[in-house]
Amino acid sequence: MSVYLQDIPVEEAVKLLQQKLTEQDLWGVLGIETIPVDENALGRVLAEPIWAAISSPHYHSAAMDGFAVHSSKTEGATLTQPLELAVGEGAVYVDTGDPLPDWADAVIPIEQVEPLTPDGKLSQEIRHPSSIRIRSAIVPWQNIRPMGEDIVATQLVLPSGHILRAFDLGAIAASGWSEIKVTRKPRVAIIPTGDELVSIGSPIKPGDIIEYNSIVLAAQIRSYGGEARRYPIVKDNFTEIQQVVKAAAGMHDLILLNAGSSAGAEDFSAAVIQSLGEVFVHGIAVRPGHPVIMGMVKDNGNTKKVPIIGVPGYPVSAALTNEIFIKPILERWLGMHPAENPQIEAVMTKKITSPAGDDDYIRVVVGKVGERVCAAPLSRGAGVITSLTQADGLIVVPRGTQGVEAGEKVKVNLLRPVSQIDRTILAIGSHDVSLDVLAQYVAKRNGRLVSANVGSLGGLIALKRGEAHLAGSHLLEPETGIYNIPYIKQYLSGMEVYLIGFALRTQGLIVLPGNPDNINSLEDLVRPDITFINRQSGAGTRVLLDYELKKGGIDPRSIKGYDRQEFTHLAVAAAVASKRASCGLGIAAAAQALGLDFIPLFQEEYDLVIPAVYYESPLLKPLMETLVDEEFRKQVQQLPGYDFSPIGKFLAHITS
Amino acid sequence: MSVYLQDIPVEEAVKLLQQKLTEQDLWGVLGIETIPVDENALGRVLAEPIWAAISSPHYHSAAMDGFAVHSSKTEGATLTQPLELAVGEGAVYVDTGDPLPDWADAVIPIEQVEPLTPDGKLSQEIRHPSSIRIRSAIVPWQNIRPMGEDIVATQLVLPSGHILRAFDLGAIAASGWSEIKVTRKPRVAIIPTGDELVSIGSPIKPGDIIEYNSIVLAAQIRSYGGEARRYPIVKDNFTEIQQVVKAAAGMHDLILLNAGSSAGAEDFSAAVIQSLGEVFVHGIAVRPGHPVIMGMVKDNGNTKKVPIIGVPGYPVSAALTNEIFIKPILERWLGMHPAENPQIEAVMTKKITSPAGDDDYIRVVVGKVGERVCAAPLSRGAGVITSLTQADGLIVVPRGTQGVEAGEKVKVNLLRPVSQIDRTILAIGSHDVSLDVLAQYVAKRNGRLVSANVGSLGGLIALKRGEAHLAGSHLLEPETGIYNIPYIKQYLSGMEVYLIGFALRTQGLIVLPGNPDNINSLEDLVRPDITFINRQSGAGTRVLLDYELKKGGIDPRSIKGYDRQEFTHLAVAAAVASKRASCGLGIAAAAQALGLDFIPLFQEEYDLVIPAVYYESPLLKPLMETLVDEEFRKQVQQLPGYDFSPIGKFLAHITS
Repeated sequence: MSVYLQDIPVEEAVKLLQQKLTEQDLWGVLGIETIPVDENALGRVLAEPIWAAISSPHYHSAAMDGFAVHSSKTEGATLTQPLELAVGEGAVYVDTGDPLPDWADAVIPIEQVEPLTPDGKLSQEIRHPSSIRIRSAIVPWQNIRPMGEDIVATQLVLPSGHILRAFDLGAIAASGWSEIKVTRKPRVAIIPTGDELVSIGSPIKPGDIIEYNSIVLAAQIRSYGGEARRYPIVKDNFTEIQQVVKAAAGMHDLILLNAGSSAGAEDFSAAVIQSLGEVFVHGIAVRPGHPVIMGMVKDNGNTKKVPIIGVPGYPVSAALTNEIFIKPILERWLGMHPAENPQIEAVMTKKITSPAGDDDYIRVVVGKVGERVCAAPLSRGAGVITSLTQADGLIVVPRGTQGVEAGEKVKVNLLRPVSQIDRTILAIGSHDVSLDVLAQYVAKRNGRLVSANVGSLGGLIALKRGEAHLAGSHLLEPETGIYNIPYIKQYLSGMEVYLIGFALRTQGLIVLPGNPDNINSLEDLVRPDITFINRQSGAGTRVLLDYELKKGGIDPRSIKGYDRQEFTHLAVAAAVASKRASCGLGIAAAAQALGLDFIPLFQEEYDLVIPAVYYESPLLKPLMETLVDEEFRKQVQQLPGYDFSPIGKFLAHITS
Repeated sequence: MSVYLQDIPVEEAVKLLQQKLTEQDLWGVLGIETIPVDENALGRVLAEPIWAAISSPHYHSAAMDGFAVHSSKTEGATLTQPLELAVGEGAVYVDTGDPLPDWADAVIPIEQVEPLTPDGKLSQEIRHPSSIRIRSAIVPWQNIRPMGEDIVATQLVLPSGHILRAFDLGAIAASGWSEIKVTRKPRVAIIPTGDELVSIGSPIKPGDIIEYNSIVLAAQIRSYGGEARRYPIVKDNFTEIQQVVKAAAGMHDLILLNAGSSAGAEDFSAAVIQSLGEVFVHGIAVRPGHPVIMGMVKDNGNTKKVPIIGVPGYPVSAALTNEIFIKPILERWLGMHPAENPQIEAVMTKKITSPAGDDDYIRVVVGKVGERVCAAPLSRGAGVITSLTQADGLIVVPRGTQGVEAGEKVKVNLLRPVSQIDRTILAIGSHDVSLDVLAQYVAKRNGRLVSANVGSLGGLIALKRGEAHLAGSHLLEPETGIYNIPYIKQYLSGMEVYLIGFALRTQGLIVLPGNPDNINSLEDLVRPDITFINRQSGAGTRVLLDYELKKGGIDPRSIKGYDRQEFTHLAVAAAVASKRASCGLGIAAAAQALGLDFIPLFQEEYDLVIPAVYYESPLLKPLMETLVDEEFRKQVQQLPGYDFSPIGKFLAHITS
């Protein structure tokens, strides 16, 4: 069977799902449970409002340690003309919190009282003297907590639907309740399916996919206020999946059936759901996402219907499906007001092309550059989970638009508080792994460094457009062998910038372990027994290779494989590992990642380009301090394939 | 013993505590624990950075179901001039996620392929046809997820100190880890002490205090990332407290000893701590807070030293002590970056007087009125826990300042997201319990109504100053018996406002159950056997009483107790309950709160005053809709002592 998907708009899918839940009378499935008022109630949702059973305080109460008196009896007391009150009649000792005698209307603090013996001398008996001497009058209700000061019996303490915080538990207890009625947590079954899946922690071979969607989905469900149960991996087998779903339906309020939701040969989700009930949505016009299924299945005993969502297999699709479609259901079930992310208006730093038919969810990093808030897009791959871990926010490019132009204003749903955005240093340019280490140390100084990878030239253009605080750059001018300065002069004309050293990055030949072909220099590339694998034109490594070949007088045409291109360091290493090539030029980390050997050849400069306007700004201070931090330097020097001797060095001040 | 407190500044106390922890080498006490990567890791803090063990994908992977090909073999294919590729050599079927054959560099999606039989006809065998026909060329790397697209082995996935979110668990699993090292949760002992304390749920009598600080403290500790253990209540007894503290020290990283931290006769905390180690802070210049103790105690076995904090007894003091002094310790122990509340600049709506010697923490509600963000102070009592549950934020009036003027700009540390503040309707004026119900229904329409109680006249002044969106008012002009309008004309001259009906509130006589004195009208107040209890001059109820006495021709001087004043409805009821008076004038809820009877006499108007500029604004829409909502009306009509027939009625449009 090969059903083609019929994508429907997001809002229509949401409406349809809600409507089906209404039809099946499933909004009240959770019911109410009574739990004690203690720290375990944190985060639970009140099913009913809390009306105060008692007042707090529930009696007129002394607010200080001292003597309860009637204020009228203290009138006229002054420093020089003190008054004496007999203890027992006009004054009685009270501790903080003690009930006030009926006849009293104020408390004189113990420090303002002179306790006296029967013969009028100062008494050692502070709490039970014979009488007290006072040297000032007191007004009614002073140092008293009147009954109901905090809570008046019958008043509304907290509304239903309220999510309980620490303080709230105190207010509930103070108003006389030791138990509360909360909405039961929704129980969600998460069923991972697929022959290619292997459990986390198992050994893996090519073609195996580590099953972690269920972990992310379960953690999300928990953070939405639900309880998740993760099932073991089920093979791509119609009957097996059907049995697990049927059993799960009996014990859960909602089922997430992960993957198998496309129209491929082994995608059984839709058929299984159909066989146990109905599919009412198959395909939603959302990216990442698309092959989402929505349906309703009956349990083993045929006694109830349970909503089921076919969640796509790509991790970003899965996480966003949960966020967009399932979270609102849980919120409505729990009676919560929908949680909102803070929103911010930002300028897009890069053109985004979106399919006109879909709502497109773009993950972005965000920083405030000068007066402008800038959003730089991260990887858009549905399989790139790190685009979510790194994201500061999400932009939705709605259906009916073809994308976003660079410089266009967009609304960002922030995944972090605005205060973090305000102290974010936005580095756009060529990314390097050492920037991650830098970011970690900047964070220790309460700064925040985020980077978007657009290549060195893209970084200079971002600086020119005022969309970044700094750029990492390793642009070699092949004619002169000079790094960065010629390009800065060309692309940042009119701007005042500082060029600061960061690292010398070793480029070298990636070869098989033990270097069996004995490759030691560029000269070896022309050997007839050697096959090379190249990077694409324009890549920094390619520019460097061509520069070095020219310098060494080696004709590129004499290198076998010079025309075969890979797009990343790691792809070059993979080609070597699979013996499609004898060697390729790249960085040490790529060789290390695949257990290959590395023959260092040259060092390229990786510098930081910083506009003068930010160079001495408070924003960049944590970064500048980190560059000279000994602990950071020690840590970063442990990265293989780098020489950090230029770090923090002033290289040039350019005012072109 | 009566040690007087020596208050030291907040920062000095924080520094001293940190210094003592450094001296005792206690920053590393938590250590590291290894836990599986699953949903239980949510919120845990990474003790070490995560460096990728493998790449993700860990092989070049098909991004779609289709046929793996080498792009060069597809060159020249067009709609009218298709190309055929033999399956097995030039093309191989792959499912999404399958590894790419070594020789392939692209995947043609299944939908773009015509499967053929050996004799060149369309085949039913979609995955294993004899050959495939294609009608367009494909470029290299299309529909491929290259190795390392998401994560490159050796790269930094997450830094240490990172608090794990759902997505992060996916990235960690994808990078090859099934276990992670996190910081052990700090274990905190919470020991409530005090003879006056009773456990939550126990019956109470005057003088009893429900012990709920330990619940709030424990819930806070949990939300900071720690594990709290609540001890049973310990009596005010030096030896008992000493024993419990000693035992707790052996099992915990930190002890919170609640109350007994003042200098009163039964305040043993300081002495106990001194006996088991040392007290290095007793008294901090912070409000609410003050009698905070900081010390260090040894455990039973004398093997380790454990920090101990004497937490003050008032609930707001206790909660803030935890927030100000203890949270930073837990954050540093866990290696987290300090969590930050969003900040906002606001205009203070009311003058605040603060003691110059203290950092004063003021709880405020916040709303955006026109272009101004306004902060209205809530109750400042250290015993008023509802000032925390209702607070939108905290303002710190620092030491050395005497307070904040009305209209002055202040920084608010928000306890709610800014988005909630943006949709907050700020009602300042006379508070009524029915506003709480209104707020609950406004919330259902995704609006937010918060109110600050400054009395009716205060509300009009707030409107005049542009510090509120509306005011609840029940101002009676005694000369005419007209409510609100004369005052609006006087105080809001030049403004255009609408007066909208809300409720008729019944005022009546609060009497003992069964009305043993047979009191039925104001005339009865002059009976010689009757003692009255009055409200303070200026109170709305007092104005109403005087108006009705005059109307009825009753001389106030003939009423016994007319001069005795209470400041709240509940205090009047309490005076009746304790038989200090036969009756008092007030509202039904106060009588009900103390189980008293209520003789209804008059109805007073409680109206809403709304400036024209907000009357039809989108902000107020949820409120205006709620006023005519049948479900809300039904709910509010159940409140005793009200007549809601005027609700939502247009009473006047005033442009004075």
